Amino acid sequence: MAVGTVLVTGGTGYIGSFTTLALLENGYDVVIVDSLYNSSQVAVDRIELICGKRPVFYQVDITDEAALDAVFAKHPEIDSVIHFAALKAVGESGEIPLEYYRVNVGGSISLLRCMERHNVSNIVFSSSATVYGDATRVPNMIPIPEHCPIGPTNTYGRTKVMIETVITDHIEAQRRNNQKAGKPYDHWNGALLRYFNPCGAHPSGIMGEDPQGVPYNLLPLLGKVATGEREKLQVFGDDYPSRDGTAIRDYIHVLDLASGHLAALNYLREHKPGVKAWNLGSGRGSTVFEMIKAFSKVVGRDLPYQVVERRLGDVLDLTANPALANKELKWKTQLTLEDACADLWRWVKNNPKGYRQEPPAELLEALKAKKA
Amino acid sequence: MAVGTVLVTGGTGYIGSFTTLALLENGYDVVIVDSLYNSSQVAVDRIELICGKRPVFYQVDITDEAALDAVFAKHPEIDSVIHFAALKAVGESGEIPLEYYRVNVGGSISLLRCMERHNVSNIVFSSSATVYGDATRVPNMIPIPEHCPIGPTNTYGRTKVMIETVITDHIEAQRRNNQKAGKPYDHWNGALLRYFNPCGAHPSGIMGEDPQGVPYNLLPLLGKVATGEREKLQVFGDDYPSRDGTAIRDYIHVLDLASGHLAALNYLREHKPGVKAWNLGSGRGSTVFEMIKAFSKVVGRDLPYQVVERRLGDVLDLTANPALANKELKWKTQLTLEDACADLWRWVKNNPKGYRQEPPAELLEALKAKKA
Repeated sequence: MAVGTVLVTGGTGYIGSFTTLALLENGYDVVIVDSLYNSSQVAVDRIELICGKRPVFYQVDITDEAALDAVFAKHPEIDSVIHFAALKAVGESGEIPLEYYRVNVGGSISLLRCMERHNVSNIVFSSSATVYGDATRVPNMIPIPEHCPIGPTNTYGRTKVMIETVITDHIEAQRRNNQKAGKPYDHWNGALLRYFNPCGAHPSGIMGEDPQGVPYNLLPLLGKVATGEREKLQVFGDDYPSRDGTAIRDYIHVLDLASGHLAALNYLREHKPGVKAWNLGSGRGSTVFEMIKAFSKVVGRDLPYQVVERRLGDVLDLTANPALANKELKWKTQLTLEDACADLWRWVKNNPKGYRQEPPAELLEALKAKKA
Repeated sequence: MAVGTVLVTGGTGYIGSFTTLALLENGYDVVIVDSLYNSSQVAVDRIELICGKRPVFYQVDITDEAALDAVFAKHPEIDSVIHFAALKAVGESGEIPLEYYRVNVGGSISLLRCMERHNVSNIVFSSSATVYGDATRVPNMIPIPEHCPIGPTNTYGRTKVMIETVITDHIEAQRRNNQKAGKPYDHWNGALLRYFNPCGAHPSGIMGEDPQGVPYNLLPLLGKVATGEREKLQVFGDDYPSRDGTAIRDYIHVLDLASGHLAALNYLREHKPGVKAWNLGSGRGSTVFEMIKAFSKVVGRDLPYQVVERRLGDVLDLTANPALANKELKWKTQLTLEDACADLWRWVKNNPKGYRQEPPAELLEALKAKKA
């Protein structure tokens, strides 16, 4: 019997698919809803190839509340939600903010309404380190702890802050209302996971990030330079006050991130803490130049880059202080930057078209051999 | 010919109806959409009785985007929006926050989407002084200027902050996008009107606040004590560090508030400033005890009250610094607290059932005589 059943919104996306895998590998059943707007249903097959279990999949947009409600109605066994579904391109969010507010904030409100109607009261929310904005504006706030003042510098980050606020208000009200009425209330719980820069791929080489269109983040872009799909990397600014002039980020292997979600879900179920925020990061910051070097080393040649202007809304340093998650969730990152670079390279080298092609037979055989 | 045509959402509500009246009296045509969830369509008749012009009225909930869109489609002459429609009970917002986020934030997103589709690019938004939260936390921030840090202490206030953010991001993106494309962009404008404690009624005695259920605000409650509908007033805390221990608010006559909306709309049309926030307040703070005294004087007897515990989310002092609106909008309050109390008393005395009864014939005759 399953440990529990989790609805994963956005479960075919990058982090959603790895978290689904981690859930299945740890005894949970998973129901995915995903609009497939920026992901591929093939991820479901790959999850099954890797772990031998298949999540239930529905192509549902979370802004379609009736369709979402029908999924809850069909699966009364759902006891928790991990909520990834969102638009996530920082640059685009500044061009079409209204659509970001509609999908991210409006979609989350719809999700919470469905949860309430179907008595599902645990939610793990995929927030973002972006909520902190420029933490260097606050003295001594790097590495960033959870109590760092919120101050997102772009619309994407603002949607995440709003959703954190809606979830917090909603769950705290449910607890207050139930408590006043003399009813059980501590089953209402929420985890706000603020994560830093996810990267890497599955070590099998058959599952990884598969962005539609031009990727926004450093490592997928480096991957495309390595495969020759892009000529060179654009480095957005080398005049930051960092050790080499480029911006500092805390890169976290997607497998570690997925296990962080699992840890948070287990914590909610066990400790019933109400709503809490945790940083998921390694605690180590790397500059853009350091990442280029690390990935070039794995690829075996210097990857070309060009320094261009800073990007609107980018900040100098987003390095996590993960002490709270380390302590409370008994979770910390296990994998290194080198692991992430090697896994990413295995993924992009073998699947230059991402999920739009079959993975190489030798990788599938290696996977089978390993499982046997 | 009309100066312009304004869609007023929530136009049958308290401030919405007075703003509609001010618009009609100043040469604008008005189309109202209102769900009538917390207001009465009778307000439309009273507006017509007072000014001789009738706004177009549609019973439409702003969360019903298709219905809202149809109103824009039917009225291509709409060139601006004044947006009041919202749930507004601070206490209730802490009990059913999700509904507040759905209606207030979700409804505003739908409204902006309709505006964009129909090329309506001026919006005056009914924000609230609540966005400031406890301004006494910041040294020297009373009276509160617009640059006071935002920090709402309740869900209602948080919905207002979110809507301000969505409007700002949307309009600034529209301007940026249009400018980049070499297209006109300065027709996108927004006014965020943060107002303090609206009170009073129309001097004719036939139009005023008509809350459904138990009112939340001081003056309507005092009105109900004066008419005998309620036994006594509850004073929420007399242990604030104010001159008499009760909380301080900046009361503004609803006629002044309505003219502030008109001034903001005219400013947007003339100066095309992008998005700006203005405080609409008198700049004078009054304590609860002072208000009881002022209203008792008008009524002619001491109104009974009882001091009870402080209310969740209430703050010591919300007094506006209205200097920016005074200067830029060339607007300031004209009416006194005594005017507000006298007008309110005339309204509640003559209409104890609000809009659920015909106004006294002598008031209607006085109105006719005045117009003739």
